[in-house]
Amino acid sequence: MNYYARPLNKLINELSKLPGIGGKTAQRLAFHILSMDDRDAMALSDAIRDAKQNMKYCSVCGNLTDEDPCSICADETRDKSMICVVESPRDVIAIEKIKEYRGYYHVLHGAISPMDGIGPTDINLQSLITRLQDETVKELIIATNPTIEGEATAMYIARLIKPSGIKVSRIAHGIPVGGDLEYADEVTLLKAVEGRREL
Amino acid sequence: MNYYARPLNKLINELSKLPGIGGKTAQRLAFHILSMDDRDAMALSDAIRDAKQNMKYCSVCGNLTDEDPCSICADETRDKSMICVVESPRDVIAIEKIKEYRGYYHVLHGAISPMDGIGPTDINLQSLITRLQDETVKELIIATNPTIEGEATAMYIARLIKPSGIKVSRIAHGIPVGGDLEYADEVTLLKAVEGRREL
Repeated sequence: MNYYARPLNKLINELSKLPGIGGKTAQRLAFHILSMDDRDAMALSDAIRDAKQNMKYCSVCGNLTDEDPCSICADETRDKSMICVVESPRDVIAIEKIKEYRGYYHVLHGAISPMDGIGPTDINLQSLITRLQDETVKELIIATNPTIEGEATAMYIARLIKPSGIKVSRIAHGIPVGGDLEYADEVTLLKAVEGRREL
Repeated sequence: MNYYARPLNKLINELSKLPGIGGKTAQRLAFHILSMDDRDAMALSDAIRDAKQNMKYCSVCGNLTDEDPCSICADETRDKSMICVVESPRDVIAIEKIKEYRGYYHVLHGAISPMDGIGPTDINLQSLITRLQDETVKELIIATNPTIEGEATAMYIARLIKPSGIKVSRIAHGIPVGGDLEYADEVTLLKAVEGRREL
């Protein structure tokens, strides 16, 4: 038996498709939405529609944007000699938040993963090679995730780009600041020792 | 500085207004929505709009419904001699799920709470008294929450209705099935002892 009226049931159903939202949470959210101001509920509905309709990928770097090229690629004051390669648009935000990096980005939308049948042509890599051809870029910082796939992608890109004379670097992996040596996993600890710097 | 494009920022903003959804979760959900099929995202947007526009309160019992009277009030096969009084439409669902109770419901949409300035006229109580006037109802089961407000509401309704000769009962409070005596709070334990039944 269906305990909810059809529109409520549909709403709970759609909400429970979101990641981390189970049946109980979806029910709680749905009841909350019903108790919201009409205006607020419509704002949420419209925000989903708007975002879905207006957000696209930047044709230069692949970042999520509502205008093409994106605000980062359109920013002429940035350092044209550097491109930071990341897996997802979220990684761009993460790096932007440190307010230190002033170069450009390139979003791969994934990482090479032979296990999942994702090869170099399945990620946004060809356009990176095209971007590097005008020789203004001096350094490529590879900031893919420190996972097997991320490392494989980093290695692949490094081998592909290095012959052209562009410096290819990888962000450092090691003990996070505030972290505890005792609780660090062995691979992280190994990376930390390997990446030691003279004081 | 705003790191997100406007439509994405708006979506994150609206999502973070939902209960239990903080900034990080809203961001994760927003990125998920952007990566969803167009059809699925529109379905979610439409479900919010539909539910908000089509769900209303049943004019008889106050339950949430898309048709008036609601499917429970419209069900002629139910036991007309019983009405179960609950605080919210969610409580109706909870009791319906045990598939045991076959009477009707009355949803108060809250509980009497003098501290918050909510008196008997601020909840859906007058229509309950009207419903009881045709004398088909023999028992009123009060299933408000076992909180101070819920108890106060139960007492108030009991005193109001009892003189009319209708049996007024309160659902049992005690140790939940599978619960542990050791971890039960004192009030629950007291209720459990008070409500003991002969075997």
